[in-house]
Amino acid sequence: MKSITAFAPATVANVSCGFDILGFALDGMGDIVTLSEREKPGLEVISILGDGGKLPYESTKNTCAVAIQAMLDELGINPGIDIRLKKGLPLGSGMGSSAASAVAALVAANQLLGNHFHKNELLPFAIAAEKVACGAGHADNVGPSLLGGFVLIRDYHPLDVIKLPVPEELHCILLHPHYELNTADSRSVLRDQIPLKHATIQSGNVAGLVTGLFQGDFELISRSLRDVIAEPYRAVLIPGFYEVREAIKAAGALGMGISGSGPTLFVLCKGEEPIPGIIASAKTVFESIGLGVDTYQSAINTQGAHIL
Amino acid sequence: MKSITAFAPATVANVSCGFDILGFALDGMGDIVTLSEREKPGLEVISILGDGGKLPYESTKNTCAVAIQAMLDELGINPGIDIRLKKGLPLGSGMGSSAASAVAALVAANQLLGNHFHKNELLPFAIAAEKVACGAGHADNVGPSLLGGFVLIRDYHPLDVIKLPVPEELHCILLHPHYELNTADSRSVLRDQIPLKHATIQSGNVAGLVTGLFQGDFELISRSLRDVIAEPYRAVLIPGFYEVREAIKAAGALGMGISGSGPTLFVLCKGEEPIPGIIASAKTVFESIGLGVDTYQSAINTQGAHIL
Repeated sequence: MKSITAFAPATVANVSCGFDILGFALDGMGDIVTLSEREKPGLEVISILGDGGKLPYESTKNTCAVAIQAMLDELGINPGIDIRLKKGLPLGSGMGSSAASAVAALVAANQLLGNHFHKNELLPFAIAAEKVACGAGHADNVGPSLLGGFVLIRDYHPLDVIKLPVPEELHCILLHPHYELNTADSRSVLRDQIPLKHATIQSGNVAGLVTGLFQGDFELISRSLRDVIAEPYRAVLIPGFYEVREAIKAAGALGMGISGSGPTLFVLCKGEEPIPGIIASAKTVFESIGLGVDTYQSAINTQGAHIL
Repeated sequence: MKSITAFAPATVANVSCGFDILGFALDGMGDIVTLSEREKPGLEVISILGDGGKLPYESTKNTCAVAIQAMLDELGINPGIDIRLKKGLPLGSGMGSSAASAVAALVAANQLLGNHFHKNELLPFAIAAEKVACGAGHADNVGPSLLGGFVLIRDYHPLDVIKLPVPEELHCILLHPHYELNTADSRSVLRDQIPLKHATIQSGNVAGLVTGLFQGDFELISRSLRDVIAEPYRAVLIPGFYEVREAIKAAGALGMGISGSGPTLFVLCKGEEPIPGIIASAKTVFESIGLGVDTYQSAINTQGAHIL
């Protein structure tokens, strides 16, 4: 019986001024899903490694199974498939963990079933899985995990997902403080209404960030990494946020933002050279307030999910 | 005594989803300013043609004189300069009339006085003139009039103005209905507070529009020409707005928006071929509600203001 394995990268969503519309993929980190045909119809999750026993096996709750089921419903077929998931991402790390699992499952399933869909066409199935995993059908993790690079979610109705260019030297550092931040809390602090003035500031910055990506203008990217509609409310939930931002910028970073709904922070920088200094400066701040921190560094992944 | 003449093009500001941050320059239409040295120190407006006698000659109120004075204050000099202004733009037409006068005056003055400033550095002086002419120091008319093309005003503090690429075949049609719309009315209908959801929709569209300009993707430009934070409130002040939009899109236009604070509408389209049909369709709608309409058509000016 046929067996297919796929990899999907970790991602950062809510990229600062690109709140709710912009995400990017990370190099090197991600989830691996292996699918195997079997006689008996239906989906079964056989094994999950690397999750510390926290993820569900039930096919109505497991993000891989939910994503594949959405694809099968569209195709109107009911084959037998065993699912094996190997987590390469810590859960709740703000690195798009559930998105990477769903996307890897879909890329493997598409290959297993004869490639009925273009890569872009897999997105609605991944969004359906995100709805089950996160309670909201966002695309700013699944988009970049599938396609790689920076990905703009221009609209959801209908879905309009656009891959943006990535300057070669752009690097990312993730700072994951040892601090629990409930996603519901992080959502509840957002304002329903915001000043018109803030909306135009946000528009200017997101237009600047997109322009910076197209032109490889790191100074412009740096000036544009400023979110005025979500970050000010969420930053207060993350101890040391403003001190860390000051420290990493002094150490040569382009800027920083909250990855997803936090508490993980992403830092962007030009080239690898400033990375050790940036990480050291952030650690110093977190340690001064009694918090440990896990750090990851990576180039921007431009390939997206793929068959192994 | 030396004499210098400069031209500055008409512009469209508040480009749909680029409300308050994006403008572009029009080809062929604009204002011409001639400056001549004279013995007696001070600025004097000698003649204004084409304004129907409506513009002020006082040097504290005339937009050309105010702009030049701001430059002279920066240089700390007080030469004698005669100003002659030839309006090529109808006043209050939503085509950046005051901005074109100020910018032409500044480009001529800079040349006359020995080019102390780069083009970009003239912007603060033009913004000072806009403050006098319009009551608000916006840069989304003066920016594109000076630099040409599509211009992003990312920020005002400090000023961050970025020229964007323009796809070659992009054309603009202006529709100026015979209808008075007070700028103060057009401002007063805007909301101080808007839903967070609308801010993210706006961000997605402006990111899409910028991407469309870089990639020459007319379909993406078309999908992105949607302003949800200002247009819905202003459109109700412009009779026939939604009917015209439907008509010009059916006639092959990419999309439409309110130029500046209206009532002039700008329409974007690909190439010259659809222009006659678009104009005819808009006229039909306006005539059906008893409104005459002046129309202008133009490519996008990418040169900006220049010495003649």
